[in-house]
Amino acid sequence: MGLPTTAQSTARHARIRRTLEALSLDGLVITCAANVRYLTNHTGSAGVAVLTGDALHLLVDFRYREAVHLLQASPSACPGLRVWDVPASYDEALLACLSEIGTAAPGFEAAHVPVARYDWWRTHAGTQHLEMVFHSTERVVEQGRAIKDASEVATLREAARRLDQVAAAAFAAAGVGVSERQVAAAIEAAMRTAGYERMAFDTIVASGPHAALPHHRAGERILASGDLVVLDFGGVLDGYCCDLTRTVSIGPPSPEARRLYTAVYDAQQAAIAAVQPGVESSVVDAAARQVLDARGLGAAFGHGTGHGLGLDVHEEPRITRPRADVPSVPLVPGMVFTIEPGAYLPGFGGVRIEDDVLVTETGCEVLTRVPRDLLTL
Amino acid sequence: MGLPTTAQSTARHARIRRTLEALSLDGLVITCAANVRYLTNHTGSAGVAVLTGDALHLLVDFRYREAVHLLQASPSACPGLRVWDVPASYDEALLACLSEIGTAAPGFEAAHVPVARYDWWRTHAGTQHLEMVFHSTERVVEQGRAIKDASEVATLREAARRLDQVAAAAFAAAGVGVSERQVAAAIEAAMRTAGYERMAFDTIVASGPHAALPHHRAGERILASGDLVVLDFGGVLDGYCCDLTRTVSIGPPSPEARRLYTAVYDAQQAAIAAVQPGVESSVVDAAARQVLDARGLGAAFGHGTGHGLGLDVHEEPRITRPRADVPSVPLVPGMVFTIEPGAYLPGFGGVRIEDDVLVTETGCEVLTRVPRDLLTL
Repeated sequence: MGLPTTAQSTARHARIRRTLEALSLDGLVITCAANVRYLTNHTGSAGVAVLTGDALHLLVDFRYREAVHLLQASPSACPGLRVWDVPASYDEALLACLSEIGTAAPGFEAAHVPVARYDWWRTHAGTQHLEMVFHSTERVVEQGRAIKDASEVATLREAARRLDQVAAAAFAAAGVGVSERQVAAAIEAAMRTAGYERMAFDTIVASGPHAALPHHRAGERILASGDLVVLDFGGVLDGYCCDLTRTVSIGPPSPEARRLYTAVYDAQQAAIAAVQPGVESSVVDAAARQVLDARGLGAAFGHGTGHGLGLDVHEEPRITRPRADVPSVPLVPGMVFTIEPGAYLPGFGGVRIEDDVLVTETGCEVLTRVPRDLLTL
Repeated sequence: MGLPTTAQSTARHARIRRTLEALSLDGLVITCAANVRYLTNHTGSAGVAVLTGDALHLLVDFRYREAVHLLQASPSACPGLRVWDVPASYDEALLACLSEIGTAAPGFEAAHVPVARYDWWRTHAGTQHLEMVFHSTERVVEQGRAIKDASEVATLREAARRLDQVAAAAFAAAGVGVSERQVAAAIEAAMRTAGYERMAFDTIVASGPHAALPHHRAGERILASGDLVVLDFGGVLDGYCCDLTRTVSIGPPSPEARRLYTAVYDAQQAAIAAVQPGVESSVVDAAARQVLDARGLGAAFGHGTGHGLGLDVHEEPRITRPRADVPSVPLVPGMVFTIEPGAYLPGFGGVRIEDDVLVTETGCEVLTRVPRDLLTL
């Protein structure tokens, strides 16, 4: 679990080399930290990689030098890795590396490189008379990351499985007279006990009217009888993110709360049932949306149905309506993403139910197993 | 504490308007989340702001709509804010907003806007025949953020003060037979109890040889007698980050450990003593570096001496050697940053001591008050 095998790393590198060849590029500069990790196993917050036809270069500064050397001396060494020292500026070191290895047409990650950095590269390559033209690329590494290999599936499955005990702790902590923040603290303590290295995102405990705010975090509000409470949390295990939402009722739910819950539940089940290889991601979104539309809750469901999970807590594929900036994609076995429709009524509250699913050869496997019935606490 | 007063918000906006006027720009597109928050009080992870001569526009999607309306209806409303709804793509909504308000020469944050996004803006402004030229700017908001106003100083002082109880919990948890991860869990539980909304960064508990890895996190290693243990943690209070490092000895320290500790301690005290308004940030770095150089530990101190603290855990000013990409700046009252020299000896271990300081009119105030003597646990 966790680190890829040598064969898996080699396969990741080979896939990108094929893309570079198709794009007539002789290298790819990788600055996105999750992409660097995916290719090199280096987990630091800084580091730049350069993949060429015959090597994978990793540039790291003093803070990570020793950690990378230890990793490369271990059985989890990344194949073909050449480590470069960054004495001061990453950008200076990058130009020196590209010049020394003779890369003339490197691609770069246009979705991750800020305009200021790109301008610096071009200007300084020019003043140093380097024969080098940077080419904009998009999603070269991300497209590979969207389809998980066996080591990633094993890690994601285990990350999702451990949410059982975290959810149990959350349900035990929530009740009349407890603050949102106290429930969040119980969730996070249980995350640590379960072995997650950190939270995947800021834990959400949204009670009563706060439940109508899809991205409320956790505040001082005290839970009261009649509240719906949205609990949304996730952990990171060996670098991989899981993400779960359950909505509970404090005391018996009102008929309106029950109606809202049933609508979201039915929407979620419809979306999960729609997950099949070859189905478009937008079709899964539509399956949830149709159910809520039919119950008069279309306008109350203002966000997408889900997002990919992996080294990032929001990655490809996006399970949304097709948009200019988020194209619909056909589902492929190995994709892992959330299914999380919700309905939010300002002043009243809201419901969201979220599970993590893996696309299989025949349909999907729901990785999160916490019961989905409306729980009364 | 926390949110700025109306007068403070107005002063923040006015300072940026003066910069825009000097740059002959009729607006600034703000995409960096911390900068958006600084100007609008909106705390969501998504949102784009546009500051013009007479208004401040905030574009948010469905997930944040209700939260922004509640904030604007409260005493903490941001002055002059106009809220725009983002039905689908932020970039489409941004072009529509700029077109409607008639901004022809907007600046954008070149350090935060990826090349792909900038290209999208230019291409689509062109196809929509919008008379609009985007101008690269850098550090327009960040320069203001580097000098804290009274509400920010109050929040940072309180955030630092609460680290006393977290450090006490860390010292109580660390000892022979305990894992790094268990110590990290104790630190994080104490953070929640102290009222921080989240960790400012992944907690570092680096024991024995791990202490030689400046950015080691916390793993399964069990603390043993003779270990030096680097404990580096910080919390976020009302959006503002604090950051503390202490190094402790498990059992009596060896003479070598004591020598290393004393060298880093003396370097840190020298750097703190150098903090004065008008002094260059690089001079503070040099004060620490000279002490370690003189003890033969120059090569063991491979990182900078400190970094600014605020809405980001790493922001301006950087307390480092002057570099092409990180210019030295004169210190100004209201700046808040860390002073954290360290020395790392691969195979043996390491020491880092870190405090947070505020530049005052006459020198500096050390905001973190946890004792700095080498503690034996």
